[in-house]
Amino acid sequence: MHQSAAELDGWWRVVGGVFSSDPARSREGGNALGFAADRCYGSLPELLDRERVRNDPVDAVAIMSPNDTHHPLAAAALDAGLDVVCDKPVAHDAAQARDLATRARRGGRLFAIAHGYSAYPMTRYARHLVRSGALGDLRYVQVEYVQSGLATRVEDAPSTNRLRWMLDPSRGGLSLVLGGIGCHAQHLACFVAGRRIGSVCADAGSVVPGRAFSDTVSALLRFEGGLRGTFCALYAAAGSENDIRLRVIGEKGLVEWSHRDASRLSVAMLNQGPRIATRGDADLPPEILALGRTPRGHPEGLREAFANLYGEVARERMSIALGATPPELPYPRIDDGVHTMAFIEACVASNGRWVDVER
Amino acid sequence: MHQSAAELDGWWRVVGGVFSSDPARSREGGNALGFAADRCYGSLPELLDRERVRNDPVDAVAIMSPNDTHHPLAAAALDAGLDVVCDKPVAHDAAQARDLATRARRGGRLFAIAHGYSAYPMTRYARHLVRSGALGDLRYVQVEYVQSGLATRVEDAPSTNRLRWMLDPSRGGLSLVLGGIGCHAQHLACFVAGRRIGSVCADAGSVVPGRAFSDTVSALLRFEGGLRGTFCALYAAAGSENDIRLRVIGEKGLVEWSHRDASRLSVAMLNQGPRIATRGDADLPPEILALGRTPRGHPEGLREAFANLYGEVARERMSIALGATPPELPYPRIDDGVHTMAFIEACVASNGRWVDVER
Amino acid sequence: MHQSAAELDGWWRVVGGVFSSDPARSREGGNALGFAADRCYGSLPELLDRERVRNDPVDAVAIMSPNDTHHPLAAAALDAGLDVVCDKPVAHDAAQARDLATRARRGGRLFAIAHGYSAYPMTRYARHLVRSGALGDLRYVQVEYVQSGLATRVEDAPSTNRLRWMLDPSRGGLSLVLGGIGCHAQHLACFVAGRRIGSVCADAGSVVPGRAFSDTVSALLRFEGGLRGTFCALYAAAGSENDIRLRVIGEKGLVEWSHRDASRLSVAMLNQGPRIATRGDADLPPEILALGRTPRGHPEGLREAFANLYGEVARERMSIALGATPPELPYPRIDDGVHTMAFIEACVASNGRWVDVER
Amino acid sequence: MHQSAAELDGWWRVVGGVFSSDPARSREGGNALGFAADRCYGSLPELLDRERVRNDPVDAVAIMSPNDTHHPLAAAALDAGLDVVCDKPVAHDAAQARDLATRARRGGRLFAIAHGYSAYPMTRYARHLVRSGALGDLRYVQVEYVQSGLATRVEDAPSTNRLRWMLDPSRGGLSLVLGGIGCHAQHLACFVAGRRIGSVCADAGSVVPGRAFSDTVSALLRFEGGLRGTFCALYAAAGSENDIRLRVIGEKGLVEWSHRDASRLSVAMLNQGPRIATRGDADLPPEILALGRTPRGHPEGLREAFANLYGEVARERMSIALGATPPELPYPRIDDGVHTMAFIEACVASNGRWVDVER
Repeated sequence: MHQSAAELDGWWRVVGGVFSSDPARSREGGNALGFAADRCYGSLPELLDRERVRNDPVDAVAIMSPNDTHHPLAAAALDAGLDVVCDKPVAHDAAQARDLATRARRGGRLFAIAHGYSAYPMTRYARHLVRSGALGDLRYVQVEYVQSGLATRVEDAPSTNRLRWMLDPSRGGLSLVLGGIGCHAQHLACFVAGRRIGSVCADAGSVVPGRAFSDTVSALLRFEGGLRGTFCALYAAAGSENDIRLRVIGEKGLVEWSHRDASRLSVAMLNQGPRIATRGDADLPPEILALGRTPRGHPEGLREAFANLYGEVARERMSIALGATPPELPYPRIDDGVHTMAFIEACVASNGRWVDVER
Repeated sequence: MHQSAAELDGWWRVVGGVFSSDPARSREGGNALGFAADRCYGSLPELLDRERVRNDPVDAVAIMSPNDTHHPLAAAALDAGLDVVCDKPVAHDAAQARDLATRARRGGRLFAIAHGYSAYPMTRYARHLVRSGALGDLRYVQVEYVQSGLATRVEDAPSTNRLRWMLDPSRGGLSLVLGGIGCHAQHLACFVAGRRIGSVCADAGSVVPGRAFSDTVSALLRFEGGLRGTFCALYAAAGSENDIRLRVIGEKGLVEWSHRDASRLSVAMLNQGPRIATRGDADLPPEILALGRTPRGHPEGLREAFANLYGEVARERMSIALGATPPELPYPRIDDGVHTMAFIEACVASNGRWVDVER
Repeated sequence: MHQSAAELDGWWRVVGGVFSSDPARSREGGNALGFAADRCYGSLPELLDRERVRNDPVDAVAIMSPNDTHHPLAAAALDAGLDVVCDKPVAHDAAQARDLATRARRGGRLFAIAHGYSAYPMTRYARHLVRSGALGDLRYVQVEYVQSGLATRVEDAPSTNRLRWMLDPSRGGLSLVLGGIGCHAQHLACFVAGRRIGSVCADAGSVVPGRAFSDTVSALLRFEGGLRGTFCALYAAAGSENDIRLRVIGEKGLVEWSHRDASRLSVAMLNQGPRIATRGDADLPPEILALGRTPRGHPEGLREAFANLYGEVARERMSIALGATPPELPYPRIDDGVHTMAFIEACVASNGRWVDVER
Repeated sequence: MHQSAAELDGWWRVVGGVFSSDPARSREGGNALGFAADRCYGSLPELLDRERVRNDPVDAVAIMSPNDTHHPLAAAALDAGLDVVCDKPVAHDAAQARDLATRARRGGRLFAIAHGYSAYPMTRYARHLVRSGALGDLRYVQVEYVQSGLATRVEDAPSTNRLRWMLDPSRGGLSLVLGGIGCHAQHLACFVAGRRIGSVCADAGSVVPGRAFSDTVSALLRFEGGLRGTFCALYAAAGSENDIRLRVIGEKGLVEWSHRDASRLSVAMLNQGPRIATRGDADLPPEILALGRTPRGHPEGLREAFANLYGEVARERMSIALGATPPELPYPRIDDGVHTMAFIEACVASNGRWVDVER
């Protein structure tokens, strides 16, 4: 997915990598995928060492490994002077995320987080409607990520299960459900509303009996500036397809988006029936239309959203390389990751009281 | 609406009433509606006095007056030996609601609350699926009532506005938004889930600046037995149509209902796409099919839901009159109203802490 | 349904009738429904004779009997000076329908046809958008009525089946599927498009093997003025809920309506996403809003649509009685019924050739 | 689109091509896209000549050029021993298509047509339900492709308009609307229903006044074996998003699909509410699940559908190369293209009479 997304518009070419935590299997895996043998590395340090001395070294790394490896790998890559695209959660906690932010800033490196949901044309259009004032002052935000991945006791499954590492808190992170899915919902809400979460009053726990980890978090939200909202991350919702839903309500109207129908945004103004804005509508702003690649009515998916994100990182890097001021590009950055980790810490600490999200 | 609903199946006939708090206007109003002059009364006490001595007295009263009059009117009607159908909220607070429960029990009177949403065939089917065990143990409940009625500053409108009395807390009740809309959502969630709310952690306030009353309540829920959930009552949601949405998630699957599409229920079992059960589907249980009156595919509405509720009160009264044991009829009763008022009190008191809902 | 619809707004009161073709059962049936014994008649002639000499005679009759009785009953009622509301199809053929039109015109009587679909607020709004020019010149019309009533061999069911009389062409009419459901679709298309069908090229037949009657008609349409379209009436569509769908496409945009979701109309203008106009939206024309009875977001159904139709007949009769010019009221009339019967005749005759619909 | 689709799963690598009908612009265009200079050719003959003598020659060509060039280019590629993926319509008429079929068969070459709609997991599932007998005998098929591309007079636009060549019948083909969009709908209907169209009764013409070409075709269908259906191709439907809708009705139930919501298939069995089967549902057949690449609930689009098609061509070619019997792979082939061209010829000839589609 990430390879095809990065290459979709020709901004990036994936030339090699580390394909397993086991060096031998990494090299075999890379070969099987068709990469040149000399660029299938046994570990990230090896990659960084050897790429550094090539005359065509890589410009960036994309990190899609288990959660507990994100911080060390990203830190190493940043320190080696590479840009980073990193899966979420970017780190174990906010302190680690701040460390990554410091390293990126120090080295002048870009750090993008793989929150693909914020790169759909229609979530971008929702953000546009907020920023342009079309909705007026914001009044309420509802967001949820509901999924069935942990609806059954996967912890009793054979340890080869693809998800098993996640269930070990030392590897999966502070909160399985927030690190796994909830952080996407939190980021999307902040992205569209254009503000951070100031405090939370959360109920974290497990709805599947006898479970050692948290599979569900509900929270009351106060965004910075006082905007109210609610948040649900349900990882054990049997029957749910796997959906993020966002509703942002303003003084003049509301927008509603669901991942199930990612190419549409319901825009309802006071006293009117909703308008279903659709990717490709000729009356959308040109910068929204530019985020699509196929004619109106032709379905696009998450791959194209990721391609938008990868494209923006490339454009920013090229602008900088050319000495130009890069345009404002809204892809998720390490500062967003710091906020996400602070949000997770606050949710875990809350236990039904209002807790500030550390800045 | 209530008249046509009560009469729809021939169970009731509306023969008179009180049509204004002003005696003269009440009599005129009743005449204009075509009621016999001698049954258009100036007040409820007058109605009760005069009906008592007729040889064809009324069996019940339906109370659709401002909130602060519900308790005195209902108490008087119960004490006069009449059954009552009452609009929500049934009283100013839980103590008043308990008083009504006591009076009803003492006099052997029926007391139904006009929560029409729980009388749609498809909310009844949702409840059926929970009770039958089709969803397994329940794991999470989400409910919301979202409306735009207070999205603008109606408090600045001329005092003749139909809603103005609601804005005076002495008339509108403890919580405008919970008494006005939230109580419907709370009741529906309890009705379908088949259990009461044990405690809440709520955030009540106003999202429209400078407002003296609460237009928004969000809450984390714990139902009795520990079931988690969330609740939102938004009275100031510009652009919202006026919708209740309920999702009840169990061990084996979930049900999802929206008032916008009241004749359908989405039933999604683990690992399967949802089935859209629809009023009139021949494979529904006969007791659900019996709640509809027109062939499959012909829209029915809130009127028919209210007719189901009125029909059940009549059937229960007739069973009792005939000395029979009435069937279990799920219309909302005064005990549900007591719980609703206790829920409202808990939400108002919570202020971001867990508060028990008094039993 | 018809009784409650007629009485819903207080325009009409149903006071008696004929309730079976068997005189004794008719009287018993009427009594059971609570009508006064002296107005439960054994036949329509008896009703007409006896009502004529009352000092509170009926003003109109509503005819909901088997198809082959529509013409004689309606003719007798018109000749007795009563207004008529008649189920569809109004007659066996166009000649009979023209006879009813002549009788109605001669006697100055109103003749309404029970095409309830054209009395929903949102089909009326569709018509409004066509008439107001919002869609520009019309370019294409698609309409279908799809149902599963004859998907199984009901003709093999015991003869007590409620539908059995329909299967006898001498009683059911020229075309079972067009008389039973197709005529509703044809009328709705003409009603919204504001024009009649000039010619058809139709394929009528049975899709269930070995069937003696037609359960399916598909047709290419040319409306008067040359507008193209398509028409499908499918009575044997297993799995279909029972739906009418209409799409009217104009130079500037299109409208799309489905009976499944009768309170909404999708309005899509060139290059824009669709707007979902909904009954009760404050920005609808006042005459459309006036067709609803409950606040926005509260479902209404077919009963309320029929009530609109009955209300219009009453308003027209009262205007005439008061010597006023009645407003233009769009309920379906006998001239529409004549066109429907001519359309049915043309479909039956077409056999894959263009055939003119007789004027 | 085609390049990324072909490369998505690693089956193909695009190494060069012809990128304009003008040789110099073709070479520049190819360079700009990053292809090696020695494989950016000025014409297809040049490509075929030069690739033939390489030791790493191409295996196939994909032809996405104007309609009138499909036959000569495809014929040359087949004759040069290459497999072909060709855009629709494959040729000007059925005779040309038959010629391509002959050449492909003679040379043992594969010929795939870019009907991507038939390669979505859910249209494949629809086909599976027909083939498995889940729907019973088929009874009716409705298909339409509705679009707004020609809703305005693009023929009056400056001649640089991207679509202008299509408007010249010598380049666009026998029927603009059928070659442009209708053929996709026809193919999809035949693909899912598993049978060819035997005869049509069509109405072809223009709904935009004063137009020299046909923008609209409606048709009554008889599939081989007698199955009835209807077909609409509307290229001038202002307000339409660009959608294909298909409904296939059988003895036991129906399936309904829309391109707007390509990842879902509504499956409704007699007397039941519809089930919304969704790409990724764990209860789907494994061969359907295998057509998706991302977890349940993550949107995929047309790119992934095309990737399925390209993958099947590769698997068939590799099976043959390995001397194995290729599995039955349902991608659209030249014989389907012959049928499509014969269907177009029949529609154009029909003029409101039943016309056989030549075999």
